Amino acid sequence: MKHEIDERMINEGVDALLVVGPAQHNPAMVYLTGGGHLTNADVIKKQGQPPVLFFNTMERDEAAKSGLKSIGYDQYPLNKYIKECNGDLVEAMAVRYEYMLKDCDVTHGKIALYGTIELGPKFAVLSRLQQRMPTIEFVGYVVDPILMPAMMTKDQHELARIRNMGKITTQVVQKTADFLQQHKAKDNVLITAEGRPLTIGDVKAKINLWLAEAGAENPHDTIFAIGRDAGVPHSLGTPGDALRLGETIVFDIFPCETGGGYHYDFTRTWSLGYAPQPVQELYDQVYQVYKTLVSELKENLPFKAVQDRTCDLFEAVNHPTIRSKSNSMEGYVHSIGHGLGLRVHEMPFSGATAGENEILSKGSVFTIEPGLYYPDQGMGVRLEDTFFINENGQAEKFVDFPMDLVLPINMV
Amino acid sequence: MKHEIDERMINEGVDALLVVGPAQHNPAMVYLTGGGHLTNADVIKKQGQPPVLFFNTMERDEAAKSGLKSIGYDQYPLNKYIKECNGDLVEAMAVRYEYMLKDCDVTHGKIALYGTIELGPKFAVLSRLQQRMPTIEFVGYVVDPILMPAMMTKDQHELARIRNMGKITTQVVQKTADFLQQHKAKDNVLITAEGRPLTIGDVKAKINLWLAEAGAENPHDTIFAIGRDAGVPHSLGTPGDALRLGETIVFDIFPCETGGGYHYDFTRTWSLGYAPQPVQELYDQVYQVYKTLVSELKENLPFKAVQDRTCDLFEAVNHPTIRSKSNSMEGYVHSIGHGLGLRVHEMPFSGATAGENEILSKGSVFTIEPGLYYPDQGMGVRLEDTFFINENGQAEKFVDFPMDLVLPINMV
Repeated sequence: MKHEIDERMINEGVDALLVVGPAQHNPAMVYLTGGGHLTNADVIKKQGQPPVLFFNTMERDEAAKSGLKSIGYDQYPLNKYIKECNGDLVEAMAVRYEYMLKDCDVTHGKIALYGTIELGPKFAVLSRLQQRMPTIEFVGYVVDPILMPAMMTKDQHELARIRNMGKITTQVVQKTADFLQQHKAKDNVLITAEGRPLTIGDVKAKINLWLAEAGAENPHDTIFAIGRDAGVPHSLGTPGDALRLGETIVFDIFPCETGGGYHYDFTRTWSLGYAPQPVQELYDQVYQVYKTLVSELKENLPFKAVQDRTCDLFEAVNHPTIRSKSNSMEGYVHSIGHGLGLRVHEMPFSGATAGENEILSKGSVFTIEPGLYYPDQGMGVRLEDTFFINENGQAEKFVDFPMDLVLPINMV
Repeated sequence: MKHEIDERMINEGVDALLVVGPAQHNPAMVYLTGGGHLTNADVIKKQGQPPVLFFNTMERDEAAKSGLKSIGYDQYPLNKYIKECNGDLVEAMAVRYEYMLKDCDVTHGKIALYGTIELGPKFAVLSRLQQRMPTIEFVGYVVDPILMPAMMTKDQHELARIRNMGKITTQVVQKTADFLQQHKAKDNVLITAEGRPLTIGDVKAKINLWLAEAGAENPHDTIFAIGRDAGVPHSLGTPGDALRLGETIVFDIFPCETGGGYHYDFTRTWSLGYAPQPVQELYDQVYQVYKTLVSELKENLPFKAVQDRTCDLFEAVNHPTIRSKSNSMEGYVHSIGHGLGLRVHEMPFSGATAGENEILSKGSVFTIEPGLYYPDQGMGVRLEDTFFINENGQAEKFVDFPMDLVLPINMV
């Protein structure tokens, strides 16, 4: 949570954070500012001091909504600096940062970099700034010891927003099931009122519509994949594909609040009309593992241990796993879950590179998503819900939703 | 256009491009790969060679759609490198890049950085990679001499996609006008069937819905701002605001193809029911300038000259401008337009920092958007269309749309 930031900065010997980029679709910036329509901004947070927001003067009303101490870029006139730097724009932009940092009393020490931006321009300016200010040192983190772990545990306000996204998400999934079931099947595929096959593209257009209607968006698209595509974990599905009966449909939906806010992540696997025996068996195995894993969730469990347990369970029923065969395309080929919040994937992680601190602690929000994939057999199954560890130390699912495999379909 | 990339690399002495990040909402990556659901990828383009795409093996089907030579990250096993690097993840990721670069025959020289990503982790890995490979030098550009100017001129395929986004955009604007006019006014505000005031939040929800329905999204939101908010160029509008008659509404909409593709950018200013004289006069002045500017557009005009001309025209009718008073909050306070494409703002720019090469050449796509702002008088006016220079060297508007200020409204 946010109150951890200063202590984490002290532990890392970091004197300031520099967070760059827009205030939408930029997790670190949204976390510190609350979001809003700031097309370009900077936040400087010195250790022990509240964050300061720098903004385009045209966006002053949006900046004010952050509640942060805010300073317009017009206080640092770029045109003047360009003249002083003999027309060197990069140097002028470095000069602006130098003044901004000095106004936050940041003149030496480690400055940790955050923010989602276009790499090239920022690399140019920060490299120049580093030359101008040899007493500072920029650092970046692959495994972030400051903001990411602070963001890993959510407060009540954040949990409420994620739960609300869960409600929206499952409502859209229900609408999708209803929509499919409103169609009848002919020659083993769903057909529209006009008599043509309903396609995955048709279904996805509806999903986008229902999400928008509910104040959500899916910047990373939605997985709605049938048959062989369902056997490839990250295949989005093929828009022109018909909805064929008796084939697995993996429906993985991970929308966020409009503007790039909090996410939800949810997967069901469906088979329209009926389930052939191999599909039913694969489903039953995944569902069994899902239930076992969920029953064993508890506070302070290292998330990596859940991944190991999942590999144990799938290997016990003779499936290859990412542990038993690291580059396998078949069996259980990914990690069991991930944290989520302002990012669809964030700490805690459960895969090979997860750290010791990535445990399921109070306020952790995470997915549990076992799956089995057999693309050459034209099938894949994944089941996923989003959980958190509540104040009593128990794992709690945000939103319930039926686990049925088969969606009954009427024939023409 | 794309065919310019190699020549531009030669001119800059750049030996390779390294483009990082997802293939959605990442202009440089979308430009080279065509987009698709690649959550994390790298493209390495050596001078004189076609680009090579590196991808997560789970996303191999999406990678294949790019049509590029593609190599899965599984060919560079991170777990193995982590072991070899004694558990140092950053070092292991740098090692992976080193092998990827070597496999593209990039072992020395200047490597230009591109891609929209989280800054911290990439900064960490590239800094380490720089230490490992002292014969290479990473460079970033604020004023990009390679990809951005190549992207500045569009081919027929790109122009067709932008025109299609223009059709979608103006259809949504028309639907918005129709929606407003379906409401009647009482006590000077539009009211809903239930008798409560219609709000800007209501209108924006509809706009999002209609965009989604048409296969578009607005990752940067939409400006729908009334009264004082209309006088602040980048105010998004206040969701709870009622739709009051006789006040300027600035409606600036800049959506893109779903997934972060090509944009359109369009603004109209409306006044519901009637226009008070000061509003009508302000509108007339902006419209007159719009018409003058558009009539003077021609091939090879430096875009900066259009900005100067705009300042001349507004200053001639006694408005302060960003040229006459650089930090003014009143009058004409921004630049006259910008290029657009995979970014909503890209080259050519028309503001103070625009370069000599930012001219309106064949295939350039750009906005013309004069405006006048008087927040303390509770009004602002902006008119904007998107244009391109066609094969005959003439400026052509993509899509026509009425310029009316007043939307007639019925009273209860």
